[in-house]
Amino acid sequence: MKISVPGFLASGISSGIKEKNKKDLGMLFSEQPATAVGVFTANKIKAAPVLVSKEKIKHKNSQAIIVNSGNANACTGNMGLKDARDLSKLTAQELGISEKLVMVSSTGIIGVALPMDKIKTSIPHLVNSLSPMGLNDFAEAIMTTDTIPKIVMKKSMIDSKEVTFCGIAKGSGMIMPRMATLLSFIITDLSVNPDLLDDVFIEAVNNSFNRITIDGETSTNDMVIMMANGRAANSFFPKESSDYQTFKSSLNALFLDLSKLILKDAEGATKTICILVEEAKSNEEAKKIAYQIANSNLVKTAFFGEDPNWGRILSAIGTVDAEIIPERIDIFFDDVIVVENSICTGMESRAKQILMKKEFRVTINLHIGQGTAEVGTTDLTTEYIKINASYSS
Amino acid sequence: MKISVPGFLASGISSGIKEKNKKDLGMLFSEQPATAVGVFTANKIKAAPVLVSKEKIKHKNSQAIIVNSGNANACTGNMGLKDARDLSKLTAQELGISEKLVMVSSTGIIGVALPMDKIKTSIPHLVNSLSPMGLNDFAEAIMTTDTIPKIVMKKSMIDSKEVTFCGIAKGSGMIMPRMATLLSFIITDLSVNPDLLDDVFIEAVNNSFNRITIDGETSTNDMVIMMANGRAANSFFPKESSDYQTFKSSLNALFLDLSKLILKDAEGATKTICILVEEAKSNEEAKKIAYQIANSNLVKTAFFGEDPNWGRILSAIGTVDAEIIPERIDIFFDDVIVVENSICTGMESRAKQILMKKEFRVTINLHIGQGTAEVGTTDLTTEYIKINASYSS
Repeated sequence: MKISVPGFLASGISSGIKEKNKKDLGMLFSEQPATAVGVFTANKIKAAPVLVSKEKIKHKNSQAIIVNSGNANACTGNMGLKDARDLSKLTAQELGISEKLVMVSSTGIIGVALPMDKIKTSIPHLVNSLSPMGLNDFAEAIMTTDTIPKIVMKKSMIDSKEVTFCGIAKGSGMIMPRMATLLSFIITDLSVNPDLLDDVFIEAVNNSFNRITIDGETSTNDMVIMMANGRAANSFFPKESSDYQTFKSSLNALFLDLSKLILKDAEGATKTICILVEEAKSNEEAKKIAYQIANSNLVKTAFFGEDPNWGRILSAIGTVDAEIIPERIDIFFDDVIVVENSICTGMESRAKQILMKKEFRVTINLHIGQGTAEVGTTDLTTEYIKINASYSS
Repeated sequence: MKISVPGFLASGISSGIKEKNKKDLGMLFSEQPATAVGVFTANKIKAAPVLVSKEKIKHKNSQAIIVNSGNANACTGNMGLKDARDLSKLTAQELGISEKLVMVSSTGIIGVALPMDKIKTSIPHLVNSLSPMGLNDFAEAIMTTDTIPKIVMKKSMIDSKEVTFCGIAKGSGMIMPRMATLLSFIITDLSVNPDLLDDVFIEAVNNSFNRITIDGETSTNDMVIMMANGRAANSFFPKESSDYQTFKSSLNALFLDLSKLILKDAEGATKTICILVEEAKSNEEAKKIAYQIANSNLVKTAFFGEDPNWGRILSAIGTVDAEIIPERIDIFFDDVIVVENSICTGMESRAKQILMKKEFRVTINLHIGQGTAEVGTTDLTTEYIKINASYSS
């Protein structure tokens, strides 16, 4: 599939923030101002670009995003804020558009000032490189410890028009998004009412990025921004219309695919695991339990060791402030029941076969109520430790 | 120092639960019934010996404790409960004392039935091995992934009598005690009012075991039991007397020493780190922040990498539901200030020297209020992952 979205240009170049001429500066540009929505990290320590973009996106209108990797511009005080604003201003000047329409985003090491000289010098080249086919370069330019660029495309028919959705994300560590996540940018040529876009967008984020964890860590720089430039020329559609349903399911599918890509590229991970909690007292309690398991170092190292260690799962469940009946818990690895009424079924050897897979599901049934939640996670490996003992994030 | 407490006998033998004739069955015995108090795991999934001993200790009276390692007798259903009760009954018969006076405790793999035949056969030998000098054998018999036995002795003068306190503990993984912790047994010849003992004991546990974390995991089998047999023949002392103060400070010191021993022997750890949060809104908020840092995989891998990565500490602080002023946080590594008002001071190279030590302190000043808390933790290493990917707990 050709990776492009009508009316959008993109680029990614090396500006010298990272070593070895790796791409570290990217731009997304819409030929016309686009309806834009975004969510930002729930971490109380917010990076300068988060503060700046969060303020700008209130107008629900944007035309360009400039993103650098290799430096988070976080914990950099007033200097960092000034740098983020300058970056937005310089980009606007070079593009010949209003500064209000330019978002900024950063990812990388915390606490170091942005090398503004290198970036300033590179902005004209970045703008000159803009191309309808530049999305791959952009996806590469925003990577940090990621080993693969992450792009997902979907096409839908809305109001008899072909509409394209493209989502790009980065992130493989410091991942337990809350409210927002990592960096992700979604562009579409859909024409859409801004408030309706906001609702569908937030719901899609909550069902995807806000349901994964790699290491239980919420970053200072998380942001997801979506731009819809209307180039598909479809008519606005009301809530609950069939076009609305098509849009919603397309966007949810796109977000789910992106969050799965992030789990697959998790730092040091060898496996992707879906933790499904069923029949909890409420969805909220199911979610708390799913996250406790998904973040348990002991459960995750057992996955790495391909050890069907259901005792660690039960132990993790027991630490949660949620209603359980300690004697009535069932645990399945895929379709194999390893624990029934909190007692081992003797199926460990079949369970071990499942744990040798790259992807599997752990289902916990609490037999209490109707609450359900699903959280995606990974195993915890010696490689994760090596990466994070040597990488300054 | 001679490791013994007047009126107490102990033993530790191999019963065949563990491989290679490793010691795995231990007993503590008081020649006369002792005043006894205990705290037990806050995990809702409680092992059978926890359920049985928790019930028995309500009488605040005990004379013997039988402990096995290598098998937790957790998640073993009604069979497990019967096994724990049988163990207590058989021990009482062999000792010729009331069953009510015998506590049971287990640690090791979860979900596997106790090998009762091996244990039953071994009880007579365990009882025959009881000796005033048997505490080292006992300490060794309760180890799992521990690499060193953990015993601390203190002597105090109370009512002009010499009183001995001896604490024994095991535990080096699945350590984030809440209410109780791991396994620990404290014996003393002190004569003490049971309610007063309970108060001082709970406070000492809360200030020591309940302030450490190795991996944020709370076990199903945690218990701390203290027995005071009165052999020192001191008079009862009232609250706030000078004898009370001596007792309280001795017990606190003993518990702190034991919890430090546990951190030093943490699975795979190379360092012990004290996280001190000062000037938080409340002690409770200080504690939440200290634990968030102490349990952060990214902070702990940075410690392992000897990387003064204060950005990860700030990021961890920002995820806590507690009041902070994002621009007013100071961070010290020992006495070196690395972050002042949330900005780097440029002292990284001095900070790196501190991180190369085996023990250091990280102090966070929030400049909000009067709340303070201290939590002990360790680094997170490749060795921790290796141990837990291959060990079935």
